[in-house]
Amino acid sequence: MGAHRVIKRCRTLAELTETPHGLLRTFLSPAMREAQHLLAGWMEETGLHVRLDAAGNLRGVYAAAREPAPRLVLGSHIDTVPNAGAFDGVLGVVLAVELLAALGGRRLPFSIEIVAFSDEEGVRFGAPFIGSRALAGVLDAATLSLRDAAGISIAEAIQAFGLQPERLPDALLDADAFAYLEFHIEQGPVLDSLDLPLGVVTSIVGQSRIAVTFHGQANHAGTTPMALRRDALAAAARWIGAVERYARVTTGLVATVGAIEALPGADNCVPGEVRASLDVRHPEDEIRHSSACALMEAARRIANRRGIGVEYENRSDQVAIACDSALVEAISEAVAAAGCPVHRMPSGAGHDAMILAQRLPVTMLFLRSPGGLSHHPDEAVRPEDVEAALRVGDAFLAGLEAHHV
Amino acid sequence: MGAHRVIKRCRTLAELTETPHGLLRTFLSPAMREAQHLLAGWMEETGLHVRLDAAGNLRGVYAAAREPAPRLVLGSHIDTVPNAGAFDGVLGVVLAVELLAALGGRRLPFSIEIVAFSDEEGVRFGAPFIGSRALAGVLDAATLSLRDAAGISIAEAIQAFGLQPERLPDALLDADAFAYLEFHIEQGPVLDSLDLPLGVVTSIVGQSRIAVTFHGQANHAGTTPMALRRDALAAAARWIGAVERYARVTTGLVATVGAIEALPGADNCVPGEVRASLDVRHPEDEIRHSSACALMEAARRIANRRGIGVEYENRSDQVAIACDSALVEAISEAVAAAGCPVHRMPSGAGHDAMILAQRLPVTMLFLRSPGGLSHHPDEAVRPEDVEAALRVGDAFLAGLEAHHV
Repeated sequence: MGAHRVIKRCRTLAELTETPHGLLRTFLSPAMREAQHLLAGWMEETGLHVRLDAAGNLRGVYAAAREPAPRLVLGSHIDTVPNAGAFDGVLGVVLAVELLAALGGRRLPFSIEIVAFSDEEGVRFGAPFIGSRALAGVLDAATLSLRDAAGISIAEAIQAFGLQPERLPDALLDADAFAYLEFHIEQGPVLDSLDLPLGVVTSIVGQSRIAVTFHGQANHAGTTPMALRRDALAAAARWIGAVERYARVTTGLVATVGAIEALPGADNCVPGEVRASLDVRHPEDEIRHSSACALMEAARRIANRRGIGVEYENRSDQVAIACDSALVEAISEAVAAAGCPVHRMPSGAGHDAMILAQRLPVTMLFLRSPGGLSHHPDEAVRPEDVEAALRVGDAFLAGLEAHHV
Repeated sequence: MGAHRVIKRCRTLAELTETPHGLLRTFLSPAMREAQHLLAGWMEETGLHVRLDAAGNLRGVYAAAREPAPRLVLGSHIDTVPNAGAFDGVLGVVLAVELLAALGGRRLPFSIEIVAFSDEEGVRFGAPFIGSRALAGVLDAATLSLRDAAGISIAEAIQAFGLQPERLPDALLDADAFAYLEFHIEQGPVLDSLDLPLGVVTSIVGQSRIAVTFHGQANHAGTTPMALRRDALAAAARWIGAVERYARVTTGLVATVGAIEALPGADNCVPGEVRASLDVRHPEDEIRHSSACALMEAARRIANRRGIGVEYENRSDQVAIACDSALVEAISEAVAAAGCPVHRMPSGAGHDAMILAQRLPVTMLFLRSPGGLSHHPDEAVRPEDVEAALRVGDAFLAGLEAHHV
């Protein structure tokens, strides 16, 4: 029971994988069917009425004392990245089931739906949030026609799984839903470095993704004196330093050059072209935009001084999502009631909550990631932190109950 | 006749390629057989006695007025890099043939051997200088057992071409050889930037090749605040800047980071590992060694400050080769006699002359590379520079003749 059962169940689900070495479970794979089967059993034991919607989301409803009633939605995703850990996504679903199990069958003045989203990571189709987009009603035809590596479209995958794409409207969020709460591991080092078990999420940061290309002149590394070079990598290196310095002095900003390619890329050639990625995130869109502009301007300045050209391509611009302030307040009170320090923080990563925020008030509760580790087989969660999260959930339900009665 | 025929012949040879788009001609390929066939014809027309040695080098001897006689060796390579230009290597062979054609059959007090080396670039077996190593007697069994992408060894390739690997000792440089002179395009921008047609090569620089790996910590680009990162690429970028600054202030030094790989290499991941190449060259081995040490020390210092590990692997350490001072003097006098400014310079690239220097005095004459361009389809040479080189060759032969008679 409690935290230990949550962790054990997550570990059990981690054995359901498409690849023999390392966990991988993608949208509507056979491994996902097995995971849904196990989860559906646990939900039914807990008194939930279970169905699979047309986007492959497993949905269990714990009926209210009296229907019709407002509905609280809990959930997270059960797909994974390649070589995944056992807790990213899955923990939020299993923890929600445990929270309802603790009610011992007692009914509340509102119903509670637990959603196990079929896709958040976007591994199979290169497009994330298939599951939550179906609930928000924003899963468009273009997305449904995306194809995986085997040439199968999302619509075809839904059909092959025994579901009906034409019934996608039935996947829409219930009209009585009034709030969405997602438990999730932090996937970052902040709580661990502060020695805190939990964090209340106040916003999900916006993200700019920009491809930057430096155009210099490829040359022989032996025959070209330093003064006659137009080395694209030397220019890019200066810029990478500038990106880091800028982000370090701008509160709340993270800026990352994660991918880099130098061409021709031979040991004995001065690089003539460098392609680099830039990822900029901040809870405030205005600061994110002005930062991205400043960093592109820095690239232009550095390149110009060296007779090097620079080109940008905006790959994506995702706006920041504010969590509902009343909900953040309610969760913060629950954290305090559970005897934990209240720490409010933005989420630096995208989550299903970001998609559902288009339709209803949302917030999230982060659990400490030991070592900040995630998307890694050693990803972990501390039993005492899960225990704390269950107490917070309990206090939150109690608060809602008092409010609704 | 003269420069125009030289250029035309180089262009004709450039049509003999293994790949339909872009010139590629590797060791003992069918395209090389065709090139040898054409060259052998031109050599025979010019009165040379032609043979193919067991390393696939095409060798033509222009007999002396009286034998036995000392022997001057001229030559360069006729293999190419992928997507090559028409002049790298080939020019030196064709120009030597033209030089002898200008003698109009007149015999000198020394014989002249022209060697068209079968491999200098090392494209097919990943090991350069197969041809000149056979002349120097340093083509060892380990090298002969190297295999190409198709699994064929050098020895097997020699056999398949109709030659006999056991006869390699016959490829050794003639015992009477007293000097080696190689005409070659500069493959760099120095002469072009100085507006000079020719350069007398005084040394071939030594080269250190080092693989450098930075070990940081891969992290999520959204959830990891700047202060909690150990970004291997940010560290590598600082170091690339340091490499450039160091080389700029060290006379005669070139240092290049030509290849870089960041892992995991995803736009949304802080790089946990970076692998980079370092190429350091200088005419003086001592300065090259101390510079390589200083640059590795810089990497260690930069990495240490960031809690990042750094590893080095010395990939190769090639010593500098001094050209023979008397020969450099003789060529310089010939340059002056041909009415050209005398410019002495090191070669930043390796050449067959470097291998033959183990056995006899060598030097090279560089022809300007317009735009510094080489290893590129647009690689060119100016007719007036070829004309000047022919005049220098003529004056050099005249000087030797006066000396030997």
